Amino acid sequence: MWGGRFAEGPSAIMREINASIPFDKALWRQDIAASKVHVAMLGSCGIVSADDVKQIDQGLDAVAAEYEANGVPEDWDLEDIHMTTESRLSELIGPVAGRLHTARSRNDQVATDFRLWTREAMDQMDAGLAALQRALVTRAGEHADSIMPGFTHLQTAQPVTLGHHLMAYYEMIRRDRSRFQDARRRMNESPLGSAALAGTGFPIDREMTAQAMDFDRPTANSLDAVSDRDFALDYLQAAAQCSLHLSRLAEEFIIWASQPFGFVRMPDTLSTGSSIMPQKKNPDAAELVRGHAGRIIGCATALMVTMKGLPLAYSKDMQDDKPPVFEAASLLGLSVAAMTGMVADATFRTEKMRKAAELGYATATDLADWLVREADIPFREAHHITGAAVKLAESKGAALEELSMAELKAIDERIDERVYNALSVEASVAARCSLGGTAPDQVRHQVGLARQALEMDQ
Amino acid sequence: MWGGRFAEGPSAIMREINASIPFDKALWRQDIAASKVHVAMLGSCGIVSADDVKQIDQGLDAVAAEYEANGVPEDWDLEDIHMTTESRLSELIGPVAGRLHTARSRNDQVATDFRLWTREAMDQMDAGLAALQRALVTRAGEHADSIMPGFTHLQTAQPVTLGHHLMAYYEMIRRDRSRFQDARRRMNESPLGSAALAGTGFPIDREMTAQAMDFDRPTANSLDAVSDRDFALDYLQAAAQCSLHLSRLAEEFIIWASQPFGFVRMPDTLSTGSSIMPQKKNPDAAELVRGHAGRIIGCATALMVTMKGLPLAYSKDMQDDKPPVFEAASLLGLSVAAMTGMVADATFRTEKMRKAAELGYATATDLADWLVREADIPFREAHHITGAAVKLAESKGAALEELSMAELKAIDERIDERVYNALSVEASVAARCSLGGTAPDQVRHQVGLARQALEMDQ
Amino acid sequence: MWGGRFAEGPSAIMREINASIPFDKALWRQDIAASKVHVAMLGSCGIVSADDVKQIDQGLDAVAAEYEANGVPEDWDLEDIHMTTESRLSELIGPVAGRLHTARSRNDQVATDFRLWTREAMDQMDAGLAALQRALVTRAGEHADSIMPGFTHLQTAQPVTLGHHLMAYYEMIRRDRSRFQDARRRMNESPLGSAALAGTGFPIDREMTAQAMDFDRPTANSLDAVSDRDFALDYLQAAAQCSLHLSRLAEEFIIWASQPFGFVRMPDTLSTGSSIMPQKKNPDAAELVRGHAGRIIGCATALMVTMKGLPLAYSKDMQDDKPPVFEAASLLGLSVAAMTGMVADATFRTEKMRKAAELGYATATDLADWLVREADIPFREAHHITGAAVKLAESKGAALEELSMAELKAIDERIDERVYNALSVEASVAARCSLGGTAPDQVRHQVGLARQALEMDQ
Amino acid sequence: MWGGRFAEGPSAIMREINASIPFDKALWRQDIAASKVHVAMLGSCGIVSADDVKQIDQGLDAVAAEYEANGVPEDWDLEDIHMTTESRLSELIGPVAGRLHTARSRNDQVATDFRLWTREAMDQMDAGLAALQRALVTRAGEHADSIMPGFTHLQTAQPVTLGHHLMAYYEMIRRDRSRFQDARRRMNESPLGSAALAGTGFPIDREMTAQAMDFDRPTANSLDAVSDRDFALDYLQAAAQCSLHLSRLAEEFIIWASQPFGFVRMPDTLSTGSSIMPQKKNPDAAELVRGHAGRIIGCATALMVTMKGLPLAYSKDMQDDKPPVFEAASLLGLSVAAMTGMVADATFRTEKMRKAAELGYATATDLADWLVREADIPFREAHHITGAAVKLAESKGAALEELSMAELKAIDERIDERVYNALSVEASVAARCSLGGTAPDQVRHQVGLARQALEMDQ
Repeated sequence: MWGGRFAEGPSAIMREINASIPFDKALWRQDIAASKVHVAMLGSCGIVSADDVKQIDQGLDAVAAEYEANGVPEDWDLEDIHMTTESRLSELIGPVAGRLHTARSRNDQVATDFRLWTREAMDQMDAGLAALQRALVTRAGEHADSIMPGFTHLQTAQPVTLGHHLMAYYEMIRRDRSRFQDARRRMNESPLGSAALAGTGFPIDREMTAQAMDFDRPTANSLDAVSDRDFALDYLQAAAQCSLHLSRLAEEFIIWASQPFGFVRMPDTLSTGSSIMPQKKNPDAAELVRGHAGRIIGCATALMVTMKGLPLAYSKDMQDDKPPVFEAASLLGLSVAAMTGMVADATFRTEKMRKAAELGYATATDLADWLVREADIPFREAHHITGAAVKLAESKGAALEELSMAELKAIDERIDERVYNALSVEASVAARCSLGGTAPDQVRHQVGLARQALEMDQ
Repeated sequence: MWGGRFAEGPSAIMREINASIPFDKALWRQDIAASKVHVAMLGSCGIVSADDVKQIDQGLDAVAAEYEANGVPEDWDLEDIHMTTESRLSELIGPVAGRLHTARSRNDQVATDFRLWTREAMDQMDAGLAALQRALVTRAGEHADSIMPGFTHLQTAQPVTLGHHLMAYYEMIRRDRSRFQDARRRMNESPLGSAALAGTGFPIDREMTAQAMDFDRPTANSLDAVSDRDFALDYLQAAAQCSLHLSRLAEEFIIWASQPFGFVRMPDTLSTGSSIMPQKKNPDAAELVRGHAGRIIGCATALMVTMKGLPLAYSKDMQDDKPPVFEAASLLGLSVAAMTGMVADATFRTEKMRKAAELGYATATDLADWLVREADIPFREAHHITGAAVKLAESKGAALEELSMAELKAIDERIDERVYNALSVEASVAARCSLGGTAPDQVRHQVGLARQALEMDQ
Repeated sequence: MWGGRFAEGPSAIMREINASIPFDKALWRQDIAASKVHVAMLGSCGIVSADDVKQIDQGLDAVAAEYEANGVPEDWDLEDIHMTTESRLSELIGPVAGRLHTARSRNDQVATDFRLWTREAMDQMDAGLAALQRALVTRAGEHADSIMPGFTHLQTAQPVTLGHHLMAYYEMIRRDRSRFQDARRRMNESPLGSAALAGTGFPIDREMTAQAMDFDRPTANSLDAVSDRDFALDYLQAAAQCSLHLSRLAEEFIIWASQPFGFVRMPDTLSTGSSIMPQKKNPDAAELVRGHAGRIIGCATALMVTMKGLPLAYSKDMQDDKPPVFEAASLLGLSVAAMTGMVADATFRTEKMRKAAELGYATATDLADWLVREADIPFREAHHITGAAVKLAESKGAALEELSMAELKAIDERIDERVYNALSVEASVAARCSLGGTAPDQVRHQVGLARQALEMDQ
Repeated sequence: MWGGRFAEGPSAIMREINASIPFDKALWRQDIAASKVHVAMLGSCGIVSADDVKQIDQGLDAVAAEYEANGVPEDWDLEDIHMTTESRLSELIGPVAGRLHTARSRNDQVATDFRLWTREAMDQMDAGLAALQRALVTRAGEHADSIMPGFTHLQTAQPVTLGHHLMAYYEMIRRDRSRFQDARRRMNESPLGSAALAGTGFPIDREMTAQAMDFDRPTANSLDAVSDRDFALDYLQAAAQCSLHLSRLAEEFIIWASQPFGFVRMPDTLSTGSSIMPQKKNPDAAELVRGHAGRIIGCATALMVTMKGLPLAYSKDMQDDKPPVFEAASLLGLSVAAMTGMVADATFRTEKMRKAAELGYATATDLADWLVREADIPFREAHHITGAAVKLAESKGAALEELSMAELKAIDERIDERVYNALSVEASVAARCSLGGTAPDQVRHQVGLARQALEMDQ
């Protein structure tokens, strides 16, 4: 494969460390497709004869059919998917196979294949995330009125609605989708024709191959084109952020499923039991989603470190680009699917949620706001008065609304009977009707917009 | 500050671990600006009286003037920039200051301030990167014809032009700018008015404050708005990728400046000497740029890890969002500036480059391509023939073009005199005129497009 | 400073990117101490005269006194702490100051200073961690009998004792201390005398300086000595693991302090209130400890990335070694102190814990074990029978021990009255008396051993 | 497997995300071995009858023989290696197989298996690193006198010997081995018998099982034992540091193999050619070693992030502990082997090295030192004088030793004829005979000590 130059064959260690076929065989569809596009262009530009083009094209189809039927053979001596395919092509159609590699190099070939693979992974992720959004929006619509404690610092802060809470994740996933879409747009340029690093002297037509592979344009600089793995990093970074969002929802499910919370019953299909504790119903899928965030961040870190300080153009270090991307794509794909299932099928125990929302003086802010609004007290002073009321209630083991008017007036004269209307959890959430707020009407409005954006109303 | 609830004051450890004022004082301009916008809206919506608004607005101006003149005082008991400013405002204008915090919370306040700061950092980075692009394009234009060895695996591969090599970095920086621009567009929503987590019952106008701060719209979900640090992660990830690109150019400068290469003489202004070796001219700035990539990746990792698994809404862990962003912004800003200086002022030793390009059988591919083109030999076979020629030349210690016609014909009959025309480095680069190739004309074409894009031709 | 070689001075950017004095001034004590040791050795070896040694030594004391009184001046033109000190020494005692740098270089000087600093940081961390262990052991001793739910997957699994739970962290911290101790032992070699990279021709005595600075021996290879930052990485990696342990305890405190759990009341001194929700008592310190784990991991990542692929010997990238170490040391030091305070002062609400332990069929395993032990049923079959019992109890909304004997016998004939003794939480924990198990006696035994190891019993 | 509790089976997604058998089947030997030890102990303690023990033990041998012959079957429904093995055992020997899991849980079982695997990986790494050290010491001994340029900032600094340079890596690897050894000592405690989290009520003998598996002692706290993955992190962090050292040597080989340096000819067995440039001899193995550092750091990051903030005891996130460790072990194992081959078989082109050492005024420090030593000039002044001499030589395009005595005296009167003896590269390296210095005698001394330490002299 490397010409007649080497006296010795590669040693056993070298075969093993050098072979990328164990993982890059995943690129076989892209490799065949790009080769077909390439040879068609070579024919169209008169670089390879029409007959030879036809033989090569049919040969590639035959190789593809074999791969489809039997998988890609893993021969370390053939190093990678590119040589594996060309070698098999050569067995099938003879020396004419050697014309396929005219005006290209493994450097632009792998850059093209891997870009195609990553672009597809981005599209798949977008579809998976849209499904997750639909699940979120559906459940949010069901629970626009369900009251739960809103937490900050995991302390009960103010009542919110479960629908509102779920729609927060809709927003995160919206940003995740936009991140993958931006990445896709940025990477959608064809490196094919950049050859080893310097371009080629053959009269090729890079616009033609770009178009045939649905790229927006050819890359502008051949040195960059074979040295660039930004598209892989963009994918990994978008995946890492997405996995962080999923890890947050997973954490919430795990805490909510814990007995002292009891806010949620995880779907049986996404839980497991214990080998020693038969009563356990473990939120394994959520835990794995949370754990996978670690591995996906590890994948992103891996490629960043690998790319650091590499001189132009292609260096073999860049062969380490694929395992992290493949791993992250697999882990994130599973995570999104599992999370979609959890959101769709979880049983929310809304009574337990509502009860919890009533504890912890969650409507204290409503008292403070009432004082500002109705008694025109500066917020900071209202805040102080409320603090005193909470302290009194806490010392009595009572809820805020259980304090008597006399007790409240003893704290501040300006409080009157109307205040009790502000202190129920229903009043609290209904009041927060500012744009993006937790009031059921607001949530229904958000859900409606989201349904439109997702075209769920058709 | 925390109301009348706590029996004990925070301990010394708590004061220190809790205080963010040592770093978040960097947000003072954003904090004042957002407060002015907020209070104007409160006035416009009839929540605070016009008189109070005026007092608060003027008071904020007075605080800003003090900060401008004397810096922000660092009092740990006041915890953060928000309380520091409000406390000073209170001293200056009395209890009316307490009305400023109506219908907002530190949670949406810090989200707004930090977003404003990060948006500005993105704009600055865009400007800095444009300057670096201009330097690259300028030098590329000067060196469209300068021949150097193109490397793969840091082995001499094919001759390229220095202009072409520099334009590869123009492309990387172009992607970096688009990454920051995408991030800016994605984050340009106003969280102000989300209050603590649930929105507010005051009849505020979030569109008004959003517009006043040049945000495209208010955020759609208050829980998300106070829990979201995607904008900071987007910044850090874009910064990390950018720093990787700079690290590659830095590595090249360092290698090129090494005596055995001698391709470049670093500008005196960006080099240092040695305390013990007076003859040294060390490429310190390039090394620091390369080293900074490590720290910037560390910053991105830090915030990813910190955000992992945080339940909604605000958790105090999120206070650790700012140090990594501030550090990365400072390190990357310096790196871009230093790299711009290096590119602009480096002396490229083009003769040494050209000489190196002639070594290492860099035009072997040209021989292979010639065989394909002129003798219609399949590429793989041409490749094999070329290998034999290189082996012969190497064994004689000769260049390829120094092999005699007899010697070449002994290797393959189909080679004839015309081949010598293909074997000079000038012929080699001139031939590679495919789109994005290294041919001087191609490079000039790329440079021209880039000058237009950068509006350098006006 | 760099000799007479440079035509131009360093530009503004260079001054800023190059200056390490803003952070390495933290090394001033180490720098002075190492210089005093160095010059004493130069005198003892006859390389510098006794008079000159005396002048330099007294001059260094004078500089140290100035630093102590007024801080280290931050002049970017003097770059770093080494030049700042030597320059001031020169002002104070004249040209004889120039003899101090004989037979050393900034490269071995900074390696020595930073090693000394890091060694001290390791010793301080060991002391801080020992204090945390003492707090854990003290509280564990108090709560050897306090029953709480033991969780797996955050699901109630089996009853455990709080003392046992706290002692798990004692074990983690024990490993952390051993990690810092191993790192200290590995790094305790003196690089001083390695000079720039190659050693020196002056007849120095490296054993003497090593001994004077309490190093076990001089480093064996001068190239390695100036290129090595393993000691900093060891510190950062040990810090990262320690921060992970603290993050786990912090997470538990945060969850336990949440209203639905209510297992713990955080000390007022390590909590904060909310600016809008006066009733909140936020576990800020715990959250910051958890968040800091992210930043400390970021610091470790930063230095790993920076060191990757650096050729020997010193490269300026290595200047980026100090900020991550200083930052991690500060963050971890605060975290350990805060966590010690939390452990020492938290109020454990043992009744709530005990009540929670009784829920969730936590003694199901005890039933299974009873079946194995008393009825000689293979474990897997016992497990299956227990599952049926739990299912029945759950469907009735009853606890396991509330099932009647008839109900139990209907599930499996072999169950008899004695089983009820196994189903209380007290019986459950008391039974688990295997080595390292949760039984109160085992915990007291562990606590006793720990008190001995910590010499708390003297 | 999870008892009779679940109404629905796990969904397809769950099967896939939950199954660890695709990777944890690598633990089969450890799983069988630990089970044999466990059941022997159950027998010895009278918990399981001798007959049953025998059946189980023979059954486990039979399963092992099947795995050895045919590999481990990958049935996702059986989730992991533990259930796969127990299920097969049950098929082979019937219900008595159900007694094996008495007094243990998957939680302590997996902790034991994975610890055993990791301990073995540490031992293998120690052996691999010892082989690398032997290769380094052997080549260093051959090249104790070979002069090459010593670099700082990749600028020629001072002449050093190649033997000295190679011995710097011997030192790094020495620290790597000590890091793995420390980790091994720290982790060598047996978690078996900790059961699910709380220990067990069966009268087991943990000392017995610990001893049978060559552990130093049982772990002291059952909650910690099943929650602890420090041993995996220790392995990954040691691997990361080791990979950084290898990346530095790899970087040097890559630069040295580059045509402008030409210091080394990589062994054919560890290089590859190019598909388009037949003359290329690419240092692929070195590049892959350098690239692998990125992935290994990614593995370490992954597990750190995954473990962050996990509450006790076992959480399913921890299933993500194995892939990073397995991947790092494989990548590092290959890297060490490849690097050993490179060191052993590389051809050092000592003439090119020596020639390069003579360039770049590498003996300038020797001139400065001479001035200090012979003319008693303070170092800083000597440094300044040397700078002037280098500047003059540079302006004349001459070497330092080519300056005439008149020229030198014009710079400083105190220079005399003897100085020329100091300015050759041989004199320079010979002079640096301080402990750890580059002088050939020092290097031979270091090599001798190393050979003793490695017991290479027997």
